[in-house]
Amino acid sequence: MKLTPADILQEVGAERIEGPTDRVFTDFASLLEATPTDVSFFSDVRYEAYLYKTAAGAVLLSTEYCPKKPLPPQVTWIFVKRPEQAFYKLVQRYKSVPLPSWGREPHAYIHPSAIIPEETYIGAFSYVGEGVRLSRRVWIFPYAYIGPGVEIGEDTLIYPHAVIMPGTVIGRNCIIHPGAVIGADGFGFYKGETRLYERIPQVGRVLIEDEVEVGANTCVDRATLGSTRLGQGVKLDNLIQIGHNVQIGPHTAIAAQSGIAGSSVIGAYCRIGGQVGIADHVYIADQTSIAAQSGISKSIHAPGKAWRGAPAQEVRQQLLMEALMRRLPELYPRFRELEKTLSQP
Amino acid sequence: MKLTPADILQEVGAERIEGPTDRVFTDFASLLEATPTDVSFFSDVRYEAYLYKTAAGAVLLSTEYCPKKPLPPQVTWIFVKRPEQAFYKLVQRYKSVPLPSWGREPHAYIHPSAIIPEETYIGAFSYVGEGVRLSRRVWIFPYAYIGPGVEIGEDTLIYPHAVIMPGTVIGRNCIIHPGAVIGADGFGFYKGETRLYERIPQVGRVLIEDEVEVGANTCVDRATLGSTRLGQGVKLDNLIQIGHNVQIGPHTAIAAQSGIAGSSVIGAYCRIGGQVGIADHVYIADQTSIAAQSGISKSIHAPGKAWRGAPAQEVRQQLLMEALMRRLPELYPRFRELEKTLSQP
Amino acid sequence: MKLTPADILQEVGAERIEGPTDRVFTDFASLLEATPTDVSFFSDVRYEAYLYKTAAGAVLLSTEYCPKKPLPPQVTWIFVKRPEQAFYKLVQRYKSVPLPSWGREPHAYIHPSAIIPEETYIGAFSYVGEGVRLSRRVWIFPYAYIGPGVEIGEDTLIYPHAVIMPGTVIGRNCIIHPGAVIGADGFGFYKGETRLYERIPQVGRVLIEDEVEVGANTCVDRATLGSTRLGQGVKLDNLIQIGHNVQIGPHTAIAAQSGIAGSSVIGAYCRIGGQVGIADHVYIADQTSIAAQSGISKSIHAPGKAWRGAPAQEVRQQLLMEALMRRLPELYPRFRELEKTLSQP
Repeated sequence: MKLTPADILQEVGAERIEGPTDRVFTDFASLLEATPTDVSFFSDVRYEAYLYKTAAGAVLLSTEYCPKKPLPPQVTWIFVKRPEQAFYKLVQRYKSVPLPSWGREPHAYIHPSAIIPEETYIGAFSYVGEGVRLSRRVWIFPYAYIGPGVEIGEDTLIYPHAVIMPGTVIGRNCIIHPGAVIGADGFGFYKGETRLYERIPQVGRVLIEDEVEVGANTCVDRATLGSTRLGQGVKLDNLIQIGHNVQIGPHTAIAAQSGIAGSSVIGAYCRIGGQVGIADHVYIADQTSIAAQSGISKSIHAPGKAWRGAPAQEVRQQLLMEALMRRLPELYPRFRELEKTLSQP
Repeated sequence: MKLTPADILQEVGAERIEGPTDRVFTDFASLLEATPTDVSFFSDVRYEAYLYKTAAGAVLLSTEYCPKKPLPPQVTWIFVKRPEQAFYKLVQRYKSVPLPSWGREPHAYIHPSAIIPEETYIGAFSYVGEGVRLSRRVWIFPYAYIGPGVEIGEDTLIYPHAVIMPGTVIGRNCIIHPGAVIGADGFGFYKGETRLYERIPQVGRVLIEDEVEVGANTCVDRATLGSTRLGQGVKLDNLIQIGHNVQIGPHTAIAAQSGIAGSSVIGAYCRIGGQVGIADHVYIADQTSIAAQSGISKSIHAPGKAWRGAPAQEVRQQLLMEALMRRLPELYPRFRELEKTLSQP
Repeated sequence: MKLTPADILQEVGAERIEGPTDRVFTDFASLLEATPTDVSFFSDVRYEAYLYKTAAGAVLLSTEYCPKKPLPPQVTWIFVKRPEQAFYKLVQRYKSVPLPSWGREPHAYIHPSAIIPEETYIGAFSYVGEGVRLSRRVWIFPYAYIGPGVEIGEDTLIYPHAVIMPGTVIGRNCIIHPGAVIGADGFGFYKGETRLYERIPQVGRVLIEDEVEVGANTCVDRATLGSTRLGQGVKLDNLIQIGHNVQIGPHTAIAAQSGIAGSSVIGAYCRIGGQVGIADHVYIADQTSIAAQSGISKSIHAPGKAWRGAPAQEVRQQLLMEALMRRLPELYPRFRELEKTLSQP
């Protein structure tokens, strides 16, 4: 990779440049780790101290930033409207891992009834089952299993070893990361006449709307009846469990290793931390924020609040409780003192 | 799918029918979501309100149910002994995802020494190693890896991307869901002469009895010596970790993302919630119930009790403790008040 | 397997033998489970009681052990310097699951540009992408995906269904267990002009040093820029999440289902229990020990301490707090009593 200040200007439309302009940069890095051949960016004031001692060759920063002291002269300062966005645009353009070209690698299994446009990539050892319908610009990486009847929208990537079970519908611009399992049977049993656990047949499906990401080794179970649904723009990190019939509203993001039990309904624009557990059949209002490792066993009806703890409370109340819990070792002797005082005749 | 009241009668042996009998139904749904072309059922009194306003075309309900008010006349009411069971029997019969036919898809790797009866399905890209013994009516889906020496009993399904490591024994009527890993090495090390962590060789196996389910991306480690064992009828949800040498008694069910560390022994008929952690070398008595997100670090010797919390206590005690914890922000000022009162001269 | 006392002597260099020497042993087992045809060992005084009633045929024990009472005469007692190490050496030598021979199974996809020495095993259905460089004595098991540009050092095993995404570098003597995903994209987004979550391009890599193990279905995300790094001798159990740009110091071991969020730095020689959560951008000092299910949201700067709880405190303080929490149901009535006493005129 080779990148000059002029290239950057052209790509991101900088408003002005200060410092040397005759440089060539060969990589990207954070302010802290950058060397003179790296391009970096500054957008978060928490890292302002790094700005004045960075070894970066070039730094993108906001046209609205007022330096507190002179900016080091050996750096090329590139002023743009939105430095973070501009930086990632450059990275995307100059450095992203290239996607394979359209075409079919050997050793793929494609059912003759599958509909596969020309502009698709079908990796080696991929499996495209009966009645599958792929749209244009879909990538099916090696070992992806696309079960019978699956539909996949345009510009969607199915990474290696992802399992898309029969009947799943995936929208446009989605990414299914390696090892994710979409549409496995839900975990449901009823008491049989002879067996304690008789399987409830799981005959629903998974419906994934546009611009959704499903992380590596994450599992999204098919519905018992009807659909398990991931709304538009939902982002799921790795190793998450989504139970049967769960509904997740648009633009909700969930961090790694969280789990949502069957039939729960999560609103739109929620932010859920890692290792959170949400019980079955609960409702979570829109724009709810849930701290990592929390446990939600009851519905949350008021939108836009922040929760924490297991069982979870609103953050303020929970933090107060936690602070007092930590003071118990100090409070207990004071309590004993009171008892002693009062037991004196 | 097309289903008439007469079909239902024939399939589930209804005792009586009320309402129209000249209908054709085309799908199944819950009372709440059903439309006039759907068959539904009622068995849980918590949903009784839905019964009187359902839009379902037909509803299965118990012969013993006494309506609180007139049942809507436009619905076909089908009275059976066990409505839930009857409903799922219908779903299974009329709607379940069809299994592939017996036979071999192309691109399978089958070691010449493997024993494979005719009535089996061997999917594309499956791997059946040296000395494997499959029984009749076994399904090996695409990308399933059946390592050397594995034995699999009748009527068992191995879903796509499941990994069955060498020497594993799986019983009859089991289901191994996609991405599950059975028989990977346990996590065991000893202090070596030069290295801190020298691997303990993991030479035992995994033994899975009849009617067991192992969820998607769940891991069951092989024993160091001897066997890691899942007893008859054990049901494991997705993303669970079962450590080396763990023994799980018959008919115990474990929800998603729980983990059991090495050598622990879990009794029969236990119910373990999601995201539970159980330490190594502990014993859990039969019929123990453990709430989601609990942490068990000591053995539980009394059978049939319910536990909750981390570290877990019996549910009643834990709930009392949790209630008081939540009251700390209210109790603390009252405590300060007492201190002030007593410090007055 | 057949093993005589003489074989054992030769393999592990015993200092002396007591009891019968004309036996043949056929398996290994723990003191508790061993039968007269098994070899066992004793090294942990907690199991001393088993020593005097074991049914084992032979027992390895320390030359420094002073028996408390006469050792049963029917057992062959083999005195060695380090009985645990000697035992595992025997197990490794006589019983470990054999690895496949060098060579290529059919149905592998190997890009012509890949460098593959003769002494390697390339399993059926494995994928070795463009520009991959394998060293000698590397095992690529069936369904392993070795993406473009990956480098793998000598004596490393890549088990079935492991996914090694493009650009990953893996050292010598490593083991990547089944279903592990190395180098999937990190979970990072920025606020776009039209979308809430615009993807941050993830163009860094994963760097795994020598003697590292990555457990089954564990995920190690690639760095956004730079490297996610697992230091020499790091041991990761199953179903762990390692976020983008995380750095883990040498010889740190992490138990199953723990998660470390993006950019955190973990020191050397740490021991982290199962189901632990570590927030993003925190620092954990060397030799830190963290109990199972703990939650770490702030940096730990002092090395060598033990932590517990969520949010975690030093173990002593946390145990004190937990003990007092459990006493709340008893303390509360005493507190009410004080209030009543004081409210009396």
